[in-house]
Amino acid sequence: MKNLLNNISNPEDLRKLNSEQLPQLAKELRAFIIDIVATKEGHLGASLGVVELTIALHYLFDTPNDLLVWDVGHQAYGHKILTGRKEIFHTNRQFGGIAGFPTRKESEFDAFGVGHSSTSISATLGMAIASNLKGETKKHHIAVIGDASIASGMAFEALNHAGVSNANLLIILNDNAIGIDPSVGALKEYLTKVKTDRKLAAQNNIIKALNFDYSGPIDGHNLPKILLELERLKSVKGPKFLHIITTKGKGLQQAEEDQVTYHAPGKFDKISGERIKKDVSLYTKYQDVFGKTLVELAEKNDKIVGITPAMLTGSSLKFMIEKFPNRTFDVGIAEQHAVTLAAGMATQGLIPFCNIYSTFLQRAYDQVIHDVALQNLPVIFCLDRAGLVGEDGATHHGVFDLAYLRCIPNLIVFAPRNEIELRNILFTAQKGLENPIAIRYPRGTGKLLNWQKSFEDIEIGKGICLQKGNKIAILTIGTISENITEALELVSEISIFSHYDMRFVKPLDKDLLEEIFANHSSIITVEDGTIKGGFGSSILEFASENNYLHKIKMLGIPDYFIEHGTVTQLQHTIGIDPKSLTNLLNSYS
Amino acid sequence: MKNLLNNISNPEDLRKLNSEQLPQLAKELRAFIIDIVATKEGHLGASLGVVELTIALHYLFDTPNDLLVWDVGHQAYGHKILTGRKEIFHTNRQFGGIAGFPTRKESEFDAFGVGHSSTSISATLGMAIASNLKGETKKHHIAVIGDASIASGMAFEALNHAGVSNANLLIILNDNAIGIDPSVGALKEYLTKVKTDRKLAAQNNIIKALNFDYSGPIDGHNLPKILLELERLKSVKGPKFLHIITTKGKGLQQAEEDQVTYHAPGKFDKISGERIKKDVSLYTKYQDVFGKTLVELAEKNDKIVGITPAMLTGSSLKFMIEKFPNRTFDVGIAEQHAVTLAAGMATQGLIPFCNIYSTFLQRAYDQVIHDVALQNLPVIFCLDRAGLVGEDGATHHGVFDLAYLRCIPNLIVFAPRNEIELRNILFTAQKGLENPIAIRYPRGTGKLLNWQKSFEDIEIGKGICLQKGNKIAILTIGTISENITEALELVSEISIFSHYDMRFVKPLDKDLLEEIFANHSSIITVEDGTIKGGFGSSILEFASENNYLHKIKMLGIPDYFIEHGTVTQLQHTIGIDPKSLTNLLNSYS
Repeated sequence: MKNLLNNISNPEDLRKLNSEQLPQLAKELRAFIIDIVATKEGHLGASLGVVELTIALHYLFDTPNDLLVWDVGHQAYGHKILTGRKEIFHTNRQFGGIAGFPTRKESEFDAFGVGHSSTSISATLGMAIASNLKGETKKHHIAVIGDASIASGMAFEALNHAGVSNANLLIILNDNAIGIDPSVGALKEYLTKVKTDRKLAAQNNIIKALNFDYSGPIDGHNLPKILLELERLKSVKGPKFLHIITTKGKGLQQAEEDQVTYHAPGKFDKISGERIKKDVSLYTKYQDVFGKTLVELAEKNDKIVGITPAMLTGSSLKFMIEKFPNRTFDVGIAEQHAVTLAAGMATQGLIPFCNIYSTFLQRAYDQVIHDVALQNLPVIFCLDRAGLVGEDGATHHGVFDLAYLRCIPNLIVFAPRNEIELRNILFTAQKGLENPIAIRYPRGTGKLLNWQKSFEDIEIGKGICLQKGNKIAILTIGTISENITEALELVSEISIFSHYDMRFVKPLDKDLLEEIFANHSSIITVEDGTIKGGFGSSILEFASENNYLHKIKMLGIPDYFIEHGTVTQLQHTIGIDPKSLTNLLNSYS
Repeated sequence: MKNLLNNISNPEDLRKLNSEQLPQLAKELRAFIIDIVATKEGHLGASLGVVELTIALHYLFDTPNDLLVWDVGHQAYGHKILTGRKEIFHTNRQFGGIAGFPTRKESEFDAFGVGHSSTSISATLGMAIASNLKGETKKHHIAVIGDASIASGMAFEALNHAGVSNANLLIILNDNAIGIDPSVGALKEYLTKVKTDRKLAAQNNIIKALNFDYSGPIDGHNLPKILLELERLKSVKGPKFLHIITTKGKGLQQAEEDQVTYHAPGKFDKISGERIKKDVSLYTKYQDVFGKTLVELAEKNDKIVGITPAMLTGSSLKFMIEKFPNRTFDVGIAEQHAVTLAAGMATQGLIPFCNIYSTFLQRAYDQVIHDVALQNLPVIFCLDRAGLVGEDGATHHGVFDLAYLRCIPNLIVFAPRNEIELRNILFTAQKGLENPIAIRYPRGTGKLLNWQKSFEDIEIGKGICLQKGNKIAILTIGTISENITEALELVSEISIFSHYDMRFVKPLDKDLLEEIFANHSSIITVEDGTIKGGFGSSILEFASENNYLHKIKMLGIPDYFIEHGTVTQLQHTIGIDPKSLTNLLNSYS
């Protein structure tokens, strides 16, 4: 049989096919995704689950004139392949290649840039209202959102508004009962019931109660059915809601069976589906250092509880839930709730470890200020994936945290230099801090083989000297410290450099800073957060308050959004990789 | 009849009454609230609406051992009066007096500090889970939340979690169909239908669908009914939901009839309810400058739309909705949705003015970064009530915005010095900016009589010199500039001081700064935002990058939470009122 996908560069080509040909195209598209992701890595399961839907949408709707928004965007690989990016799809998530998520600057078919969850209904409603105001009454506006994402508060806010609008909006709920980890919550239980109980769907329907024209649930892998229903919905005015049931990982047996692992499986055999084991790293992920240490601590301290907004596996809080299911809470994609839940627990003497990716804590900024810090409740925030995160790119870098957290009174802000420091601060934090603390650490492994040492206290607000020199003091925070250590091994004149790991962005170690300023003529600060308002800026403030007039050079994330690539590649572009740092330091000699 | 309230200092006294006496107590409590608020001002309508509920809760439950959380807290005056604060209630919202909202440090009966909406279910669920873990199975955990607040995403996240918990949680929906402005949205329409359609409440019930034991709706002013239902619910295990119908302003005719005005009516006659007109201010609120100017602009530019998350009256966007109802969107308490809705609109060429109080934009921080700035969509954020807000206190001061916004790439950050500057930046912004912009301005009036001048462009990134001196440059941002102007009128040696209004925190006016640093030996920065990471910090960064070694003194909000009081009182405590500034400047002579 002739390969159909080969001749499809964009949706116009797709629309030339007969609808009977579409199931074959679905097969080919699925194979194409598997083929590339098997060797180039990326997010697999979500895109396999929406192959039929993707084809149906571009076949029936007039994209890009009709506007299509994919929530989160993990599932948009098929969309990218059908909309002009087939030939460059192998560059997915690579430095200089296409992005892992839809992004407006990449294609006119990407109506809205995504990455964080639950934005699609708001964005699409905004577009639909705009079309109404512009008199473009024939235009369609479509949001595709998963069952994990629709349970997030922001999506509810958008539904609540859309239900009373006259916007020409179609929301497609891609219900596969899983986000990255299995979906949780009352809405998920409700949706599960709806799947088997037609009467429930017809009568006690939450979505209908919110004024939507609800249809479904229908089989999302049955192309004729989807086409029929979408065609019907094209002529229904106002806010519409189509509930489809899909299987994440559809078409690759292992991916269907182990949906959590095959969300982003790494390299795998495209025929058998078997994952290709990487060389086993000698090192441990920071996530596992967190997860395993927390279990150790929780065994001895029964006040400890763990909270994650839908990142049980990613954060390695899975270790805690295995051991202490009653003391571990996956609240779904609900960062706002997660933080205030932790605050409520802290009022009753529990010690909540609230693990949220740095970039997602942006979703709960107000709750950190208003519910935790203002009441000075000792919640322990573990900010995972802080700094540059690599291939997930601009939407996911955790580079704003130091700036947005350090202006908050009462909050302690700490970044461990290595695994032992992370371990020890977790130990210290659960011993009864009087303040909330944010502990930020990166994605991926550190460089210590033997990190599981006996616990030691970390004195709050105390930095340490790693290397003593006589002229220039380099001040670092967190794991970027390692880059300076490497650079110092290569500089021509090491004796002029001191290196201090300040550890706490807040409170600053003022005694140590006095000493540093007294004994050095010039200062360099290095961080993997924004230069504007970040750690370096806090050192400037210290200098200003104390009338030090030293030259202070600040290195970190410059004032633009950083794209995707490996962390090293990205660090190199902004001059904070070991090599660039070596060159910089040599220029001081 | 003997006055009952006189003998009630705390809920223990209350519990000595017969239940037949409670309606009389309700009358007295209502009269007490009216009496005090009539002369001391404050929030009236919300507390009048829950007098019966307040009494019933403290009568039946074992507060403070049972934990009671009032959402937002506008409605908690009766609660404060019955829990030991009757004698000091007249100090409500005053400097040194009790806070306008429940706050943990004020009373053990205030189980959780509130102010921002929709936190109560999360916090109470956290407490209930803690009780479970601690084996305190008899403890009750009660959240009272209004129909406007429950429609916010965070509340939905909490419901979604609570519904699958076994927590002993009672959520009471205080449904009066109004927040500060009338409630909006599909959920509100649903709740309205439920009130008259018993079958709907019984069968197609959103709350039941989320696994709650739902009861109601019942009349929230009928004490016997409430007592009966609460008594019944005390023995129901797991998550429970009681829907009560109340009238905001109940018991004062004007307050019932004009609920928006009597949310916080100012002084009024306690018998007639007539508001006592203040001396008409000669000046115009910044809110009205915004609202009226926007109408002027919208008349000529049909791409302009206005968005508010439930602050139609407070923000004065009411002027726009009166004139352009189709182009004005009150989305309810939904800051996250409001921002991404604006982003969606901006992709289609609309010019969205998204008006959010500074303190509430904290709720949409991620959306500003991820949906607006990352895509560089020219949304115009109007940040109302920036800086110190006065009597609303610690929960509401808009003091973090400069710090949390200036680390975001692509975003322009501007603060007008006066009404004309606000007017002109609104004019400039709608002419086709290529970037998003945040415009922050304070609550209350400015000092210009004649601000409705012809529009003039403001050059992006340009500050101005207000006063030229030869030694010390004072750099201000926003309306705090006026305090420096006043101070300079009183200093002994004015000729040594220059005064610059930098206007833009981002982008900084680098040319002007070069000139300033070249011509002055020392710099003072003044802002009404946090010193940490704020405007002053951006000047330090400029100096550091450009190797200026001037002494720079930073004035602003110090690193602790500021309580309530008049703005002048609060400014005085932190040394940025005109008098303190005069003294400071004189010390330089």
